Amino acid sequence: MGHTIDDPHPDDRAAIDLLASAVDGQRSALARLLSMVERGGPSARAAARAAAARTSVDGYTVGITGAPGAGKSTLTGALVGAMRADGVEVGVLAVDPSSPFTGGAILGDRVRMTDHALDHGVFIRSMATRGHLGGLGVATPGAVRVLHAAGRRWVLIETVGVGQVEVDIAGAADTTVVVVNPGWGDAVQANKAGLLEIADVFVINKADRPGADDTRRDLESMLDLTEERDWRPPVIATVATVGTGSRELWEAIGAHRSHITASGELQRRRADRARDELGRVIAERLRLQADRLRDGDDFHTIESQVVSGMLDPWTAADRLLGEDLQ
Amino acid sequence: MGHTIDDPHPDDRAAIDLLASAVDGQRSALARLLSMVERGGPSARAAARAAAARTSVDGYTVGITGAPGAGKSTLTGALVGAMRADGVEVGVLAVDPSSPFTGGAILGDRVRMTDHALDHGVFIRSMATRGHLGGLGVATPGAVRVLHAAGRRWVLIETVGVGQVEVDIAGAADTTVVVVNPGWGDAVQANKAGLLEIADVFVINKADRPGADDTRRDLESMLDLTEERDWRPPVIATVATVGTGSRELWEAIGAHRSHITASGELQRRRADRARDELGRVIAERLRLQADRLRDGDDFHTIESQVVSGMLDPWTAADRLLGEDLQ
Repeated sequence: MGHTIDDPHPDDRAAIDLLASAVDGQRSALARLLSMVERGGPSARAAARAAAARTSVDGYTVGITGAPGAGKSTLTGALVGAMRADGVEVGVLAVDPSSPFTGGAILGDRVRMTDHALDHGVFIRSMATRGHLGGLGVATPGAVRVLHAAGRRWVLIETVGVGQVEVDIAGAADTTVVVVNPGWGDAVQANKAGLLEIADVFVINKADRPGADDTRRDLESMLDLTEERDWRPPVIATVATVGTGSRELWEAIGAHRSHITASGELQRRRADRARDELGRVIAERLRLQADRLRDGDDFHTIESQVVSGMLDPWTAADRLLGEDLQ
Repeated sequence: MGHTIDDPHPDDRAAIDLLASAVDGQRSALARLLSMVERGGPSARAAARAAAARTSVDGYTVGITGAPGAGKSTLTGALVGAMRADGVEVGVLAVDPSSPFTGGAILGDRVRMTDHALDHGVFIRSMATRGHLGGLGVATPGAVRVLHAAGRRWVLIETVGVGQVEVDIAGAADTTVVVVNPGWGDAVQANKAGLLEIADVFVINKADRPGADDTRRDLESMLDLTEERDWRPPVIATVATVGTGSRELWEAIGAHRSHITASGELQRRRADRARDELGRVIAERLRLQADRLRDGDDFHTIESQVVSGMLDPWTAADRLLGEDLQ
């Protein structure tokens, strides 16, 4: 049996203490709490419980996604600038393996979000992306919950929108911003990657380059072909490197927020997301169960039969899990 | 209890029959078998069992990966051309959501692998990418096994190398080809996405564009920085649209194959892959178990408590799985 409320697990105790410090403005406590979320398993659970136990602020999440090189990080920085000008505190989660926020600077590439590095109203965190499959799908909503519980009402999630996991993560925001660049191919690629369906706001970044008008026309005609919805994603032109269009983007996010709040869509989305998160947490719990399987006596014998080709992996899994799947 | 060998499951019977027809050259049987793999669960298991039961040819897999727009599909087509010129039969799996092989042609985009559409020595199959998380990580090795069992010795796996799942899939080949384009950013992006580590052969496609020499220099200097290995990935320049370099690529793949066969690395990779596949199949089996959880009486009550925010998803998962995770 596990620990009860009267006899809390050490992780639970640690998470509650860290959250209290984070609410008091201690950034290192918030950072450690997010590390617990990333670690998964019991420590992620403790962080989630601590966050859930605290009356949270009315949090709001914005996903920012697009192909690598679209300028998502620069745009995120510019958007943060517009938000800070309004006095809004903001948390940024970078779930993009190619994001400069991840700190993995290579050779001459030293772009960073230096403008906001010293601003206490901004908290930037990159999420590890090299874990097991689907780990980010559990860690990202967990990190959002912790940031909200710590008083960060607005959370931006920057993620590259190409892989399945990443598109899922980007789509799990209250408002999703899809970033493309001038050029016909980019709009088509975004469509193919499934980004058209999840976009609430489109941004044509690097709009000072040739082809911006064509890209806008392409996006608009693709939107014409989609079924009638009560919100048509606006298309905003930005040049994030110099801040052009960031104010309009911030206003478009506000307009979308007002719209989905009034229509009830926000509540529906959040209910869907809660269901989805429950499914992922269950899968994660089962994965931990599978990891424990590896400690069993049979495991190495059966594994070596798979490696030598004597056994197919499905039959091996049947033997290890001790039941037949019919 | 499940069915035994004396009393086979209907799916097992179907898979065995389809495989026999596929070996006889019936393409529709092969296609149906691959659909069983994609479907997952009992039918994927049946297909895997049927394939494992058959003495397989000495199969070999080549992964082709890179960012969207790098020209992977065109390059794959050109490589198939070089292989066909040597009389080699080839199976192609397209796991790339932006691949034209998927048939999801949008508006004016009608690029297809028309050169090989009528060639019986080539079997092309696109894998569905919109399933659950991690589904492709199980389905892709399953599809490779089926193609090998059906006598397709060479299998090319084309996948976009950006998301976590996709990089994992690309890396699960005997030889992995990483495609970049001229321009400094591309080589850096490939590095960040983790593609440098998995590359056995580099291709600079669209090498007739400006910057190809710079990209080669960048790749070579990044390779200089990696730790000493007994195989240094060659860098091949191609213009896939006109077939330039495809012969060199085919030869480089052959050289890498000879090298890893002689060094024992091929066997090590395959053992790692078998282990990895076993882990994924176990996870998939547990996922099916989680799906069955949804049919339980408690599920909807607990789910609605998560949706309303009364319960955090971890505590909910504990209740549903009926055990504490300590």
